[in-house]
Amino acid sequence: MLSTLIELQRLKRLDRTGWTLRGLPNGTESVAAHSFGVSATAMLLADKFAAQGIAVDIEKVLRIALLHDWAEVRVGDMPRTATLYFGSEARKKAETAAFSDVVADVDEGLYSSLYDDYERRDSLEARLVKAADVIDLLIQVLALERAGARGLDEFWEVAEKPEFNLEDKAAQIVQELLQSILNARRELHNNV
Amino acid sequence: MLSTLIELQRLKRLDRTGWTLRGLPNGTESVAAHSFGVSATAMLLADKFAAQGIAVDIEKVLRIALLHDWAEVRVGDMPRTATLYFGSEARKKAETAAFSDVVADVDEGLYSSLYDDYERRDSLEARLVKAADVIDLLIQVLALERAGARGLDEFWEVAEKPEFNLEDKAAQIVQELLQSILNARRELHNNV
Amino acid sequence: MLSTLIELQRLKRLDRTGWTLRGLPNGTESVAAHSFGVSATAMLLADKFAAQGIAVDIEKVLRIALLHDWAEVRVGDMPRTATLYFGSEARKKAETAAFSDVVADVDEGLYSSLYDDYERRDSLEARLVKAADVIDLLIQVLALERAGARGLDEFWEVAEKPEFNLEDKAAQIVQELLQSILNARRELHNNV
Amino acid sequence: MLSTLIELQRLKRLDRTGWTLRGLPNGTESVAAHSFGVSATAMLLADKFAAQGIAVDIEKVLRIALLHDWAEVRVGDMPRTATLYFGSEARKKAETAAFSDVVADVDEGLYSSLYDDYERRDSLEARLVKAADVIDLLIQVLALERAGARGLDEFWEVAEKPEFNLEDKAAQIVQELLQSILNARRELHNNV
Amino acid sequence: MLSTLIELQRLKRLDRTGWTLRGLPNGTESVAAHSFGVSATAMLLADKFAAQGIAVDIEKVLRIALLHDWAEVRVGDMPRTATLYFGSEARKKAETAAFSDVVADVDEGLYSSLYDDYERRDSLEARLVKAADVIDLLIQVLALERAGARGLDEFWEVAEKPEFNLEDKAAQIVQELLQSILNARRELHNNV
Amino acid sequence: MLSTLIELQRLKRLDRTGWTLRGLPNGTESVAAHSFGVSATAMLLADKFAAQGIAVDIEKVLRIALLHDWAEVRVGDMPRTATLYFGSEARKKAETAAFSDVVADVDEGLYSSLYDDYERRDSLEARLVKAADVIDLLIQVLALERAGARGLDEFWEVAEKPEFNLEDKAAQIVQELLQSILNARRELHNNV
Repeated sequence: MLSTLIELQRLKRLDRTGWTLRGLPNGTESVAAHSFGVSATAMLLADKFAAQGIAVDIEKVLRIALLHDWAEVRVGDMPRTATLYFGSEARKKAETAAFSDVVADVDEGLYSSLYDDYERRDSLEARLVKAADVIDLLIQVLALERAGARGLDEFWEVAEKPEFNLEDKAAQIVQELLQSILNARRELHNNV
Repeated sequence: MLSTLIELQRLKRLDRTGWTLRGLPNGTESVAAHSFGVSATAMLLADKFAAQGIAVDIEKVLRIALLHDWAEVRVGDMPRTATLYFGSEARKKAETAAFSDVVADVDEGLYSSLYDDYERRDSLEARLVKAADVIDLLIQVLALERAGARGLDEFWEVAEKPEFNLEDKAAQIVQELLQSILNARRELHNNV
Repeated sequence: MLSTLIELQRLKRLDRTGWTLRGLPNGTESVAAHSFGVSATAMLLADKFAAQGIAVDIEKVLRIALLHDWAEVRVGDMPRTATLYFGSEARKKAETAAFSDVVADVDEGLYSSLYDDYERRDSLEARLVKAADVIDLLIQVLALERAGARGLDEFWEVAEKPEFNLEDKAAQIVQELLQSILNARRELHNNV
Repeated sequence: MLSTLIELQRLKRLDRTGWTLRGLPNGTESVAAHSFGVSATAMLLADKFAAQGIAVDIEKVLRIALLHDWAEVRVGDMPRTATLYFGSEARKKAETAAFSDVVADVDEGLYSSLYDDYERRDSLEARLVKAADVIDLLIQVLALERAGARGLDEFWEVAEKPEFNLEDKAAQIVQELLQSILNARRELHNNV
Repeated sequence: MLSTLIELQRLKRLDRTGWTLRGLPNGTESVAAHSFGVSATAMLLADKFAAQGIAVDIEKVLRIALLHDWAEVRVGDMPRTATLYFGSEARKKAETAAFSDVVADVDEGLYSSLYDDYERRDSLEARLVKAADVIDLLIQVLALERAGARGLDEFWEVAEKPEFNLEDKAAQIVQELLQSILNARRELHNNV
Repeated sequence: MLSTLIELQRLKRLDRTGWTLRGLPNGTESVAAHSFGVSATAMLLADKFAAQGIAVDIEKVLRIALLHDWAEVRVGDMPRTATLYFGSEARKKAETAAFSDVVADVDEGLYSSLYDDYERRDSLEARLVKAADVIDLLIQVLALERAGARGLDEFWEVAEKPEFNLEDKAAQIVQELLQSILNARRELHNNV
């Protein structure tokens, strides 16, 4: 178990390349910090789903949120453009193999199966985590813009037309949250 | 929900003061990155507990691990010495109140009750997360020492005589992991 | 004396949490750098006071400015919100005790008495340093805004209605300086 | 031309992941800084080759050294382990396509042909730059170790048995330089 | 050769003071990263000159671009204001002597002669590199402004009335590039 | 007064080049943080002088300590080697002129006269501050070494044979402090 933990610990230092490639300082956000943000968002979201009567396996949500980026410790946080050159299939395949090796010493099959579920967005839980992943990204962008960062417009496009494949009630909860983020951003820029 | 997420996002930038006060560079580890480490450790540990027949509520473990440091966004990551001057009771009370305000908009009572459980180490799950908290700390120290950092000896004292109040089988699992960390450290320093 | 100097040296690395919690990069300003700014401001202000016939003990001003944040090396740079949860009395008491321990080896009573004076704003010198503390903060905010930072509006509120309890001539000198900072800020934002 | 220059400028901020994954601070070395180091090393090496009568096209050497990492602005600085999962062929193909797109607006064919030459180590000039790439890496490791970094042993393996496919005289020049680096390292660690 | 390479490696960490003195974070741009940017710009520019029939020695261009800032490893990256106090003649003399010592072990005369050429802007190649030096600076400013930085207006003055002493055709190529940078900046600020 | 304060504020970000040129991270120590350290050291030292019956003007000590590095905001923190190339006379002259311009708006003659005193080590107070300057440097080196930094041996030479031109009793106080620093260092390295 120790070797897995030692390896995961490296995610605390690995920069999310999206920020540094856009001129923000090194250390803006680590993969570990992002994973924390996604997990916290996913928990709040899952509890809201449950409160509105949507059946959701919260343990599964939290597990997927925590582990969805572990492959990056071996593959790196590839910029979006990298996918254009490797192809998204090759990227998924490489990341799946890397994930599998990262957890080799501790996995009885559960972790890899959760990872696959997430990659294929099979379950509601996987789709919920994907929504949390995007929401955490947008809240990070909002925080950076509030602190003065610019040049991050492209990140907002996904917020305009989210495609999470969630059923009606779930989709509406996510949509309302996205809308409140967009409103906060509008307010921010009106005040400048 | 948005205001809570915006506030939690700040933990991604908040430095763990333990490192900077010992002369390590700013940005060594954020509270968010530590929370990720604790959560990942707690999940692996909980799964090991379960595999050895210990009844453990893993959803609860993950929830506690994720939220156990949220109060710091309002109270800061106070150095250990601060507790000497405020008193550990006052510190707990302040942090409990701060936690309660952080989650005010999203809590139906569950989050605060999990936080209290953790502060009092009531449940097995709370005690497991405390063990994960210490293990993540030690793995971070090990990683820093491997990269050349020195002057961190005091952190290892807790590893020598852990007091997690775990029952036999659980205590042994944790003890073995701690032992493997100590061995890795010994090996590291023998090689220097 | 050495142990005191070693401890104070740690203030060079301790981040002012106000900035990191607002999304600015780690390393934006250390407590030591702020103490330097307050001391330099206090010296210029004290000399202006003296030039206008106000009796001021400049040695005392410089001593207070230098040492007013030393407690933070043990208590940390607590965010403003922390005071809400600890209470300002408990915070002052803890910081006073921490200060006392920091200087234990070198203090014949003078340092602690100057610290108490500052905490209670007893003397003109203490009140002058408090004004310098706020002015250094605002000049830092101005510099950050000039470099592009945003989201720091709340810091400017204190500049609108300063309460330093200074007598007429002194109050006017401080007021003029604050006004020139506000003008510089207005000019900055008109140019954007 | 502007769009190419804007894109290349991003390499100034992109961290070399090798360091951050080994626990060194963000900002330890950017891809641009490394490219500078390789180019400077390559120039000195090429001049030494020439001085010893080896025919070498120095303009070509400098061009290859400058541009050999430009693909990373689109693909990222992938950690070594990434190659295991993508396969070195897929990686080369992706990087070649990325390079080609980076220079699309300014290339009449020369840049891509130099890039291919480097990837295949066709020419003496390409092999010289590869040697310079490794030498700059080792000098960086040496500087980090001199400043106290540890845990970088694996980088030294390549220095023990370099495979640059250089002819006798050239191989000897490179070998002597590698040897002097190894000696400097030995001296460094003897002094500790 | 090793001692020269070890010394040059330090340029990877040396901050360009222009940014830090204007409130941008430490690590914004190293001298080595800037040298890379100047070299890449110079190569593209030289190839454009050649394509339009201007006779230019590209090997010489690349050499000058690479080495033009090496003296800074001994003299530091002095802020512009420093020249006012030392005088530009004393500064040039000091930097020339420093450069000469940096390359003492590896120079047969060529490097110093290229350095002198650059300092005096004797050749077309030297003047081309000076233009690349300014262009890389402006593209860096543009990138920083795109990421939200402000307070950098003074850097743009040189772009309005460049004095590179280039002959007609060369001057026009540089002028067009400068114009496209100015346009990009205008567009950037219109979008804010 | 505002323009002076705005300019001095830049010292909070200006890195001490000695560290970055030796491979330590950017942001290791700012000129402002160092000035704080020198001022705190000078105050403790001056109080010890006074306690032992040495007549010392403490206000003057604190003023000199605070302002002794202000010229660097215009001239930069030049590395030691820079003095070799400019000559120490030219450096002093440039720094004196820069200091004079920094304080132009606020100086009635006192600041420049204190600066000159420091540069010439005329008074006991100036010599005391010089000793504090060296002691703060050594305590910083000690802290960096305690945190794992290496390669800083050359800084310790001055501690072996200090030349502060202090009279007997004063020299002995400084000597004892230096000795305790050297002892702490010896102990540190014995423990490794």
